[in-house]
Amino acid sequence: MDSTAMFAMSYGVYVVSAEADGLKAGCVVNTAVQVTAEPIRMSVAVHKDNVTASVIAQAGAFTITAIDQTADMPYIGNFGFRTSDTYDKFAKYETAVSGVGSPYCPEHACAVYGCRLIDTVDVGTHYLFVGEVEQAERLSDEPPLTYAYYHSTLKGKTPPKASSYQAE
Amino acid sequence: MDSTAMFAMSYGVYVVSAEADGLKAGCVVNTAVQVTAEPIRMSVAVHKDNVTASVIAQAGAFTITAIDQTADMPYIGNFGFRTSDTYDKFAKYETAVSGVGSPYCPEHACAVYGCRLIDTVDVGTHYLFVGEVEQAERLSDEPPLTYAYYHSTLKGKTPPKASSYQAE
Repeated sequence: MDSTAMFAMSYGVYVVSAEADGLKAGCVVNTAVQVTAEPIRMSVAVHKDNVTASVIAQAGAFTITAIDQTADMPYIGNFGFRTSDTYDKFAKYETAVSGVGSPYCPEHACAVYGCRLIDTVDVGTHYLFVGEVEQAERLSDEPPLTYAYYHSTLKGKTPPKASSYQAE
Repeated sequence: MDSTAMFAMSYGVYVVSAEADGLKAGCVVNTAVQVTAEPIRMSVAVHKDNVTASVIAQAGAFTITAIDQTADMPYIGNFGFRTSDTYDKFAKYETAVSGVGSPYCPEHACAVYGCRLIDTVDVGTHYLFVGEVEQAERLSDEPPLTYAYYHSTLKGKTPPKASSYQAE
């Protein structure tokens, strides 16, 4: 099996966030997908060990922010390479609250989707959270950041808990 | 809710295919995602009314082909705008058989992923099929066709059974 073949898949780059019991959590994922149109539902895979996964489960809701191409590595690193357990990822940038009560950052984001959790699927190391979109809002006209651009232009890495991680 | 906000999400374009009882089925989707790395598992949303959905269920396996940027609209239309019920989508182009027994077309494809079905999730109008990747193979060095390129450059449409369909 040639696991480098997985690089031929295309994705966006997103922050998935939630808040429960005063704990704000969020992480960077490439796994958000619109799975149905009527009603609009999305799925997103989050590693079970991510704080965000347990906060989504507790909140019964999550919010996806589509990062745009103006984002730099410090911005992405703030959400992607820290842990919500000991670090407030929503302290450094302007933060808003989505329609389902999750914190999110409008800066460097082209759209936000507030989702009510309707199903949680155990797919092994990750949970696949399925949510019904209650809020969908365009935040800017900037082009969305793609996973390809993140790797090729921003020289971003894929951390071990990512769905698409490969040991080097 | 501004449903045009959904256009800020990024995807690839894929053929998902399967064969059972001599019936070859396949359709075009933008919903394929790698959901775990160890082992490599993928999910894909397919409309319940698509012949491909019932053939995947019967076969217990499916194959994802990542379409590359050399694909033209007749090629995509062959898989995306016909029904496998009455038309053999694998008769017009060179066809191979994946490691899990699905037909697939290597032409205009940059990678193929043969998946064993491990879970089927009902997400409303669509099933979310979760599969373990048993075969991953790079087929060409062409860049993958993105959903953005499909819309902007190939002027492709999104048919009613697609997860991201929006009435005009």
